[in-house]
Amino acid sequence: MRPYGERSPFEKTLRGARESTKSIGVGSSRTPLQDLYGTITPSSLHFERHHAGVPVIDPSQHRLVIHGLVEQPLSFSMEDLKRFPSVTRPHFVECAGNGGGELAGNAGADASRSHGLLSNSEWTGVKLSTVLAAAKVQSSAKWVIAEGADACRMARSIPMAKALEDSLLVYAQNGEALRPEQGYPLRLLLPGWEGNACIKWLHRLHVASEPAMSNQETAHYTDLHPDGKATMFSFEMEASSVITHPSGGHKLAGAGFHEISGLAWSGRGKVNRVEVSTDGGATWQAATLEEPVLSKAVVRFKVPWQWDGKPVEISSRCVDETGYVQPARDEILASRGPNSTYHYNGVKRWSVKADGSVTSV
Amino acid sequence: MRPYGERSPFEKTLRGARESTKSIGVGSSRTPLQDLYGTITPSSLHFERHHAGVPVIDPSQHRLVIHGLVEQPLSFSMEDLKRFPSVTRPHFVECAGNGGGELAGNAGADASRSHGLLSNSEWTGVKLSTVLAAAKVQSSAKWVIAEGADACRMARSIPMAKALEDSLLVYAQNGEALRPEQGYPLRLLLPGWEGNACIKWLHRLHVASEPAMSNQETAHYTDLHPDGKATMFSFEMEASSVITHPSGGHKLAGAGFHEISGLAWSGRGKVNRVEVSTDGGATWQAATLEEPVLSKAVVRFKVPWQWDGKPVEISSRCVDETGYVQPARDEILASRGPNSTYHYNGVKRWSVKADGSVTSV
Repeated sequence: MRPYGERSPFEKTLRGARESTKSIGVGSSRTPLQDLYGTITPSSLHFERHHAGVPVIDPSQHRLVIHGLVEQPLSFSMEDLKRFPSVTRPHFVECAGNGGGELAGNAGADASRSHGLLSNSEWTGVKLSTVLAAAKVQSSAKWVIAEGADACRMARSIPMAKALEDSLLVYAQNGEALRPEQGYPLRLLLPGWEGNACIKWLHRLHVASEPAMSNQETAHYTDLHPDGKATMFSFEMEASSVITHPSGGHKLAGAGFHEISGLAWSGRGKVNRVEVSTDGGATWQAATLEEPVLSKAVVRFKVPWQWDGKPVEISSRCVDETGYVQPARDEILASRGPNSTYHYNGVKRWSVKADGSVTSV
Repeated sequence: MRPYGERSPFEKTLRGARESTKSIGVGSSRTPLQDLYGTITPSSLHFERHHAGVPVIDPSQHRLVIHGLVEQPLSFSMEDLKRFPSVTRPHFVECAGNGGGELAGNAGADASRSHGLLSNSEWTGVKLSTVLAAAKVQSSAKWVIAEGADACRMARSIPMAKALEDSLLVYAQNGEALRPEQGYPLRLLLPGWEGNACIKWLHRLHVASEPAMSNQETAHYTDLHPDGKATMFSFEMEASSVITHPSGGHKLAGAGFHEISGLAWSGRGKVNRVEVSTDGGATWQAATLEEPVLSKAVVRFKVPWQWDGKPVEISSRCVDETGYVQPARDEILASRGPNSTYHYNGVKRWSVKADGSVTSV
């Protein structure tokens, strides 16, 4: 009997990390999607993206302040926040930069490197709308500027409509307290929106009539057009998918039956349909979606496959409940050009060789 | 960036363990339900119940053998099993002895000690029916005797109907490989049935016409009647529930709004309704069930509550989709007598004192 268990020493899968050599605490680590099962990302393997390290915060000292265009500025302890009605929701979090290398021509060699800035958890917290109601937001308020307690005071401006729709102040993840690298003891969660806007180590909400125009919403996390202009505040993560098995780095034991399996998601709501091609995109068949299919959460899809042992290209595309169809990379290149590396959601193609090895296309 | 994350050093909740002083490797540890959120039990806090320790198994050496009344005896490697079509299902596992102390008059002081032999995970594996079909079960087969690779070769006999209905051979838990204390690399999972029958470290399936009448299904895990006779093979865990907040060991900060929250589950299918009383059982109100409500999985229920600061008794009762109503302890005592400590599912009562402290009734 152990008071807090660990995985088997035979299990070796890890987050693949990339840290900046110039700035301490800047970098990311990726969820090893090619080694995982089901829909829940183990909290120990949730992707990380830090801009100034991971602060160590004593929850008994932490406060969340709400001020600005409110009738009643408020300061909450963590215990205060836990007294509000709670909600539990399974949702994905995806970095806006996930897959950016695919557009740039640096295709990820495995599912971690292509799509590993995506994770999926059961989150528990309080609705942001509940807390805003307590502070009595003024009618001129249009934005909520969220600020983190990390060393860079990461700040992002959230439109009031989203704040009131389904945004959460989250203190728990997969049944226990939020992990340090996910914002312990408190983070903002904007279901379906880019991870960077889901401010971690949240300590301040400034209710305002204009956005902050912070560094991370002007110089970064914008969509660069061919003419040099950029779209700001494009938060939504559009429908996407990736086959995780077989995927880059795997080696099939031989011809015969294999299950093709992967993850699909949409920031617009539920996944409606996933289609899989095992002939280089010539034909597509509907995959089975593992129940329950939940809004703004990943769904596991599956297709039975008889492999004849010949080289083949496999890929998946997601259709969400709005009817939006995940585009091919060429379509994205044609419409956005090569420099818009945020919010990339092109179809991912894997090549299965005759020897069973799998590589990225 | 860390390759495999850990929780915050400020988080201290642990499984409460009880080990036998007479036999090495015999005992249990309990999920600290009173400290957790949502529905997923973190794998590190999943309850344990071991009868002969936790074997260390190299998955590359592990085999599952199927023999007996089959046309084709088979031996599978873990890789072989993973080639079959997979399924992912959220389900609870509950020890048949969970709550037994409540009937015996040793009421658990907190939710861990009263109901902590209950956990809930997202499991991934292959349907037992798929594997049995590969071995071609003979028509005279009525039972599947499952045996574990632990030192006691734990064995339980499973009726063929359950084996073919929804039973799973599970190799993953909450997104990653099964944990060692949950049977790494392979366990049997019988949705809604007592945990002891969900054989861990599974290495053998003997298809037979009669049950094995093993130690653990004759001398233990039976329901003892007042006349000294016992019912065997009573696998199903009936509808139950427990308020986890506020619960024993908690202390409310003061009168005013508090959310009452807890877990409900049924081995017979979905939870249909949970009712909460805040007046010692005189009146009951319907709780909100957190979506999605899934079959044979825990559901989180919630009731908003204005506490007037006076002493009060709170409790919950679960009604499942079959219409079965969770009984009071007195009803169970009247119908089964005091010695039938397995499969106890009586209503749990908590006493809130004027100073806000909460104790077991």
